[in-house]
Amino acid sequence: MDIEKKTETAHALADAARAAVLPFFRSAGLVADNKHSDGAFDPVTEADRAAERAMREILAKVCPEDGVFGEEFGEVTGQSGLTWVLDPIDGTRAFLSGSATWGVLVALSDDSGPVYGLIDQPYIGERFEGGFGRATMSGPLGMRALRTRGDRPLSDAILFTTFPEVGSLAEGAGFAELAQQVKLVRYGLDCYAYALVAAGQIDLVVEAGLAPYDIHAPIAVIEAAGGIVTDWQGAPAHHGGRVLAAASRQQHAAALEILSRVT
Amino acid sequence: MDIEKKTETAHALADAARAAVLPFFRSAGLVADNKHSDGAFDPVTEADRAAERAMREILAKVCPEDGVFGEEFGEVTGQSGLTWVLDPIDGTRAFLSGSATWGVLVALSDDSGPVYGLIDQPYIGERFEGGFGRATMSGPLGMRALRTRGDRPLSDAILFTTFPEVGSLAEGAGFAELAQQVKLVRYGLDCYAYALVAAGQIDLVVEAGLAPYDIHAPIAVIEAAGGIVTDWQGAPAHHGGRVLAAASRQQHAAALEILSRVT
Repeated sequence: MDIEKKTETAHALADAARAAVLPFFRSAGLVADNKHSDGAFDPVTEADRAAERAMREILAKVCPEDGVFGEEFGEVTGQSGLTWVLDPIDGTRAFLSGSATWGVLVALSDDSGPVYGLIDQPYIGERFEGGFGRATMSGPLGMRALRTRGDRPLSDAILFTTFPEVGSLAEGAGFAELAQQVKLVRYGLDCYAYALVAAGQIDLVVEAGLAPYDIHAPIAVIEAAGGIVTDWQGAPAHHGGRVLAAASRQQHAAALEILSRVT
Repeated sequence: MDIEKKTETAHALADAARAAVLPFFRSAGLVADNKHSDGAFDPVTEADRAAERAMREILAKVCPEDGVFGEEFGEVTGQSGLTWVLDPIDGTRAFLSGSATWGVLVALSDDSGPVYGLIDQPYIGERFEGGFGRATMSGPLGMRALRTRGDRPLSDAILFTTFPEVGSLAEGAGFAELAQQVKLVRYGLDCYAYALVAAGQIDLVVEAGLAPYDIHAPIAVIEAAGGIVTDWQGAPAHHGGRVLAAASRQQHAAALEILSRVT
């Protein structure tokens, strides 16, 4: 594999998605327009599709041998054993609320899961990169290395999820039990919370009901930064569903002990 | 009152706070340092104090006739009838989590409440301004006018609060009743949610237990953009406590009908 070419391609995809999506972000009357046109025009979906189309055009030219799996236009099998896993807007509800906590997710994966990924926040101009020996971020404060926090007990941990219900009643109850053990619980960040694990800011992200394209890039970025991402049984998480992302072993083990009991 | 001088001063305060606070944001081991030094060094509080000190130094030079009321160093009465109301970091828990949803709040108020305000997000480089006939924002996409959304029913509304418990059990129950009526509920943005009301992105923010310095600047910005901010009885909100911010009359009236029943 030509690693240089793959990483360049990944950044080109994220650049193209930024350009495609930003004109829609905070466009006036995002929801109102939708309401008054009988649902015919959905600007979030339009932005989603424009970004994925732009990324697929690049891949068709540059890496036609690779497969593509994206949220909007499904899966195309490749010949290389590698697949680009794309979520043009992770966090569409954040997007339509104007909150800069959504992201563009780009991952390169083989049969064992993601090997490289980018989490990009176009409005802030931040990009988190992990894999092929890289673990870096760029943003308003320049370039920085990504490194997760070290071991610490749950009583000192910061835990994030996107919404308090989390998923099913049983999943919500498992999360609530974990939430009672930690120092601080925060909500609402979608993929941005995974970036904060990689950046060493928080300890745990717990979610349920994810699709594979929601989690491939976060897995690559967090693992490259020294963290651990599994499902709630400790198995690989790249198939989606229930996800536990942890900064380090101690937080992961302690959270797993609670979450693994959820049926 | 020299409006030009007051607005220039407000921007100078926000600039000074940005410079004071940003070196602390996402500084490595923000919480770990705290833990290992027996609580003697609290970087969030350090950032808070450094920013408020910087702002008070400017005010002592430029507007010694005005009062100052800040979160960290209390109240100084002035002779002009005007008071600068300052919250150097609104959203300290977001700050220590690395989430760019905290803000610097600067308001200029008289006895009737705030007349002008700024909500500044230093990391994104966004500033929301309202009062003295201005309602504008600047940020990564340049300058834009601020205008709240128009009337719409709760069933089409987007509602924000910072954390799902909101406040007391009764306050949480009131919020939950409102939340069941709206299209979308999101959590976790602190003062940034008020900026999103002013920017026309969302319909409602509901919080409880606020201090006056948490809400003066948001009131000025939202009212300048066409919105309404009151307490849960429809009375002025600048004394803090329970706050309801709405994009327009219809959303405000519908939310008030539910929240005003909370004892």
